[in-house]
Amino acid sequence: MDAVSIHEVRPDAFNYVWDNSLVPALEVESGEAVELHVRDASDEQIHRGSGVEDVTKLDFSHVNPVSGPVFVKGARPGDVLAVELLEFRPPEWGWTAIIPDFGLLADEFPEPWLRISEVDVETATVRFANGISLPYRPFPGTIGVAPSEPGEHPILPPSRFGGNMDTKHLRAGATLFLPVGAEGALFSLGDTHAAQGDGEVCGTAVEAAMDVVLRLSVRRDFEIQAPEYDLPRGALRQSEESSYHVCTAVGPDLMEGARDAVRATITHLGERYGLDRQEAYALTSVAVDLRIHELVDAPNWVVGAFVPESIFEEGGRG
Amino acid sequence: MDAVSIHEVRPDAFNYVWDNSLVPALEVESGEAVELHVRDASDEQIHRGSGVEDVTKLDFSHVNPVSGPVFVKGARPGDVLAVELLEFRPPEWGWTAIIPDFGLLADEFPEPWLRISEVDVETATVRFANGISLPYRPFPGTIGVAPSEPGEHPILPPSRFGGNMDTKHLRAGATLFLPVGAEGALFSLGDTHAAQGDGEVCGTAVEAAMDVVLRLSVRRDFEIQAPEYDLPRGALRQSEESSYHVCTAVGPDLMEGARDAVRATITHLGERYGLDRQEAYALTSVAVDLRIHELVDAPNWVVGAFVPESIFEEGGRG
Repeated sequence: MDAVSIHEVRPDAFNYVWDNSLVPALEVESGEAVELHVRDASDEQIHRGSGVEDVTKLDFSHVNPVSGPVFVKGARPGDVLAVELLEFRPPEWGWTAIIPDFGLLADEFPEPWLRISEVDVETATVRFANGISLPYRPFPGTIGVAPSEPGEHPILPPSRFGGNMDTKHLRAGATLFLPVGAEGALFSLGDTHAAQGDGEVCGTAVEAAMDVVLRLSVRRDFEIQAPEYDLPRGALRQSEESSYHVCTAVGPDLMEGARDAVRATITHLGERYGLDRQEAYALTSVAVDLRIHELVDAPNWVVGAFVPESIFEEGGRG
Repeated sequence: MDAVSIHEVRPDAFNYVWDNSLVPALEVESGEAVELHVRDASDEQIHRGSGVEDVTKLDFSHVNPVSGPVFVKGARPGDVLAVELLEFRPPEWGWTAIIPDFGLLADEFPEPWLRISEVDVETATVRFANGISLPYRPFPGTIGVAPSEPGEHPILPPSRFGGNMDTKHLRAGATLFLPVGAEGALFSLGDTHAAQGDGEVCGTAVEAAMDVVLRLSVRRDFEIQAPEYDLPRGALRQSEESSYHVCTAVGPDLMEGARDAVRATITHLGERYGLDRQEAYALTSVAVDLRIHELVDAPNWVVGAFVPESIFEEGGRG
């Protein structure tokens, strides 16, 4: 990568809302590369020495800061912004929390919980617990452009303009396509994750500050209504070498099915690996993938939760 | 595999309902292997020379026949039946239909549609169309045990005892765990598929009659409330070597999200590969995987539909 061509977003340029009237932190031409210094989702309220009391004290008016916005010259509403993800500079550590009143099973997990994990760059792993190492697979939890509707939009829900998509597949090598909602697109990125499962069920991943390099290009040769992305050959294969244990749920509501599959996974992780319920719930969030197996055999749909057994030093059902 | 030890279910032993009072077609000891001759989901109403008129004429009181039931000695309610999937004998052809009033987008696809695909055993592919070959990945769409509740239960909806799970990952090498609901488990299997995506969105896969060999064992060392399964190392990797284009949907309802992601996929397949809407919908059913990316960033969840580009002779976005 030619370092000279990379434009930097100042570290102090970040926001806690989406708003198409924000003043750009940087202007670039279509096709130029940008580097962003991304703060963690707690905005430094949780640090390497934190205990669970820092989860209790979290100020939610200062979470999920997004670096930017970047104005891309020539981008107009109706265009597509192509975001090529080029590089993530590894962090040294990350955090995972169960935050009261947040997450898929919030009603069943009322107590705060916190885990600090170390990132080992050499082995490309995240040390989640004794005997449990996750593959280090960095991506931005939040990546998007300003919405077309004026005013401030909250940072936590994603929208058709992207935002807090928490989509684990947006790794280096992937290209994300976003519908442009406002002049210049006003691209921002935050909430970088060192590891996460499809679903992010407890509401947090392995949250970690990171520097990110990407390329922004305006496309007019196709239209989209919501985010789409391209994954290079082998990207998915590389993630999925492991053996798996899969807990399914069968029922008439996909959300309840997801909840049931996660409950079964928590039970499985407890029985098979001796994890307590909170640790099992958090591990499900950072390592287990939710898939929709079928949603046509009315009235019951099937959801599967994929536990990769390679994260355990000794795997396999006895 | 030692042919002598395989017990055969008679080809004429099949049923159109789940019922724990059905007379077993076969009794086996725990740990024994069984071979089943599985009829296609249309029960031979659709044949290799069929046209769309055979879809219109389908008699739904004779669909999804399941071979069995097999009584496994010693299996009692509360036990787990482990089903090791050992072998699928390849069919020569299969069918995929859009059936009126059936499928995820039934309201948008009112007309019947039919595609006969040839299976090429040598290349392990299913020839879906000129220029579109799917990997041949056989599995049983319907696999289960008799429910604990007495009486006849319809064959199309799955339940916590398995049934019409349409779970594409249940291939040779996988082990499915089913909660036993009735004395002897009364295992049955049907609806064999030569290829399918996670979701089976149009309601049919590449439907094909097949012979299936598996091993049935009673387990009492753990309990489950719904089906779980184990996948051997590399099984998922092998499926996912391709590059992918992913259409996402962002919104407050997972089912509507899945519908939106499928709609975007149909549009993408039309624009990128020139498929008409019906063919694109059917191809999405047999080749595209639905994943839940996040369901915690209230009020909006993200669903992704994964299009494997390796199925097209010329792939990649221009």
